[in-house]
Amino acid sequence: MLITYMEMENSYKITLNHGSGGKMMHELIDSVFLNSFSNGKMIQQTDSAIIKNASTHHAFTTDSFVVDPIFFPGGDIGKLAVCGTVNDLAVSGAIPEYLSCGFILEEGLELGELLIIVHSMAATARVAGVTIVTGDTKVVPKEKCDKLFINTSGIGRVSDENLELGTGNLVEVGDVVILNGGIAEHGMAILCEREGINFHSGIESDCAPLNHLIHEILSNDHGITFMRDATRGGVATVLCELSKSRKLGVEIWENEISIRENVASACEILGFDPLYVANEGKFISVVKAGKAGQVLEKMKAHELGREAKIIGKVVDNNPGLVVLETSIGGKRVIEPLAGEQLPRIC
Amino acid sequence: MLITYMEMENSYKITLNHGSGGKMMHELIDSVFLNSFSNGKMIQQTDSAIIKNASTHHAFTTDSFVVDPIFFPGGDIGKLAVCGTVNDLAVSGAIPEYLSCGFILEEGLELGELLIIVHSMAATARVAGVTIVTGDTKVVPKEKCDKLFINTSGIGRVSDENLELGTGNLVEVGDVVILNGGIAEHGMAILCEREGINFHSGIESDCAPLNHLIHEILSNDHGITFMRDATRGGVATVLCELSKSRKLGVEIWENEISIRENVASACEILGFDPLYVANEGKFISVVKAGKAGQVLEKMKAHELGREAKIIGKVVDNNPGLVVLETSIGGKRVIEPLAGEQLPRIC
Repeated sequence: MLITYMEMENSYKITLNHGSGGKMMHELIDSVFLNSFSNGKMIQQTDSAIIKNASTHHAFTTDSFVVDPIFFPGGDIGKLAVCGTVNDLAVSGAIPEYLSCGFILEEGLELGELLIIVHSMAATARVAGVTIVTGDTKVVPKEKCDKLFINTSGIGRVSDENLELGTGNLVEVGDVVILNGGIAEHGMAILCEREGINFHSGIESDCAPLNHLIHEILSNDHGITFMRDATRGGVATVLCELSKSRKLGVEIWENEISIRENVASACEILGFDPLYVANEGKFISVVKAGKAGQVLEKMKAHELGREAKIIGKVVDNNPGLVVLETSIGGKRVIEPLAGEQLPRIC
Repeated sequence: MLITYMEMENSYKITLNHGSGGKMMHELIDSVFLNSFSNGKMIQQTDSAIIKNASTHHAFTTDSFVVDPIFFPGGDIGKLAVCGTVNDLAVSGAIPEYLSCGFILEEGLELGELLIIVHSMAATARVAGVTIVTGDTKVVPKEKCDKLFINTSGIGRVSDENLELGTGNLVEVGDVVILNGGIAEHGMAILCEREGINFHSGIESDCAPLNHLIHEILSNDHGITFMRDATRGGVATVLCELSKSRKLGVEIWENEISIRENVASACEILGFDPLYVANEGKFISVVKAGKAGQVLEKMKAHELGREAKIIGKVVDNNPGLVVLETSIGGKRVIEPLAGEQLPRIC
């Protein structure tokens, strides 16, 4: 894959597809970043890097947020920036503790808008129980950025027993796939807001910090073998990456995948497959079959997991592929996303 | 200071001055960020937050880089992004260990340019001895950013005895002020490159990772009471902040402050006071007078400290003020920078 880009002319240009969370982004990451920054930690390509010390292990993660528009039903860029990094740490099995925030502001941004966003970050950090400890501000001239961009990086503590949750290395045939609620809400909320499309019943982003819910299900002897939040590229992308990296089959059942009616209608009208649409409060967990009941029960007791369901299982046929059993009984291979569905949803 | 902004109309807008490293940036930080993210760590406003654990202390820092142009004599945005974060950790007394990198790419960016920058980051990280362990990539449409912005966050280890170096709390009357070389090189290199001004002898940025030099001078019983890198706002801003926060006087001697001839000429022609121009490889250290000889000797033995000099001292008159003794024997109060000298120099 390295060769692909290296062989290209230097005039090869970045496109929006390179930021989509799909194949093209992975090719860019593999060929440009991993090749240059080669080290074991980055090659794992998990949501957080794990830093092992003699005494404690830390998870370390970073994310830049460029969502357009900066205010949307269910949240804003500030809430999103805190949730995104908290969730990347949480799905790595870490307890999120400290956040940094780096602001790039466009000259002419209304101070009132910035204040709302900063208050939203502070409120979300309080809910998540994390502390924003360091920051940076840059201002660029008008039209050199788009209102504001926020980077949050985060540090969390991770115990020995949860070290491998982000990698998928523990996943085995027979494990079940659990999803904590309805899909495609964040992506469709952003799109509808951006395009000024008003549906009779408004769609809200599911943007939320998942760390307390995840902490609940990660009690002793939890049986969880893998976790990842289903952001850019949606549920389909998480499962495609898992099945491909572990060379195992994943079977999912359309009937068990929740989607709100208004979200489903919006996807249908606008031509989006909800399996590929971004979420910001949904995560996939893969669990030993014998522990699935216990995990589900804990999830359902939590506000953000009330609609949790088993949506599929890890199988030994079709290794490397995700197969969807449709609601009318058909089967369809879920392909990894190549290009862009929705730019700037996070 | 909080009231200043709160009382203003919501239509008050961000200006380039809010990103300059001067008074207006501090007012923005105080009124918007510190007020919202209130916690002891952030209120210190040091280059890195210090995270204290039972076993080890960590320093955590973040910086976004929006420099224009992205390539300049002596470096590029990638080298700068690694040096900036490494140096923020190092001047906090920490040993930089791990870096994250978040890229925001403009649609249409040449892949060849990205590759050069990423290789430059990797090379600089190798020189500094830090590992880039986690990353993120976003792409925004044309004209929604300016080629690329990079955020780097970093983690370092800090020992008990170096915990207070970033705060200035240890500084006392009688301590001397040391600077490790010539000033204003980075800012003037950027400006000349941006404006297409060619001077007979080219000015190069001093952009460099300072952590090895700083590690040398921080050996046992080092006598250093304060360190800060003199980036946005230059040497003047570091000293003004120190004198103000500690309510001590600082006296500096123009004759002892090194500046290359071509840099001095450029400053004169273009009307910049070099004391306020950004550096990316220079730092101020304040040292007990009895230890200054030892610190200077170690600095001069290192490539990046060869031209180190004692440039002033901490005094008990004029508390809160920095006074420059000019080369012709006059005295001039060095005022904190209010607005912007040079936008987008880092």
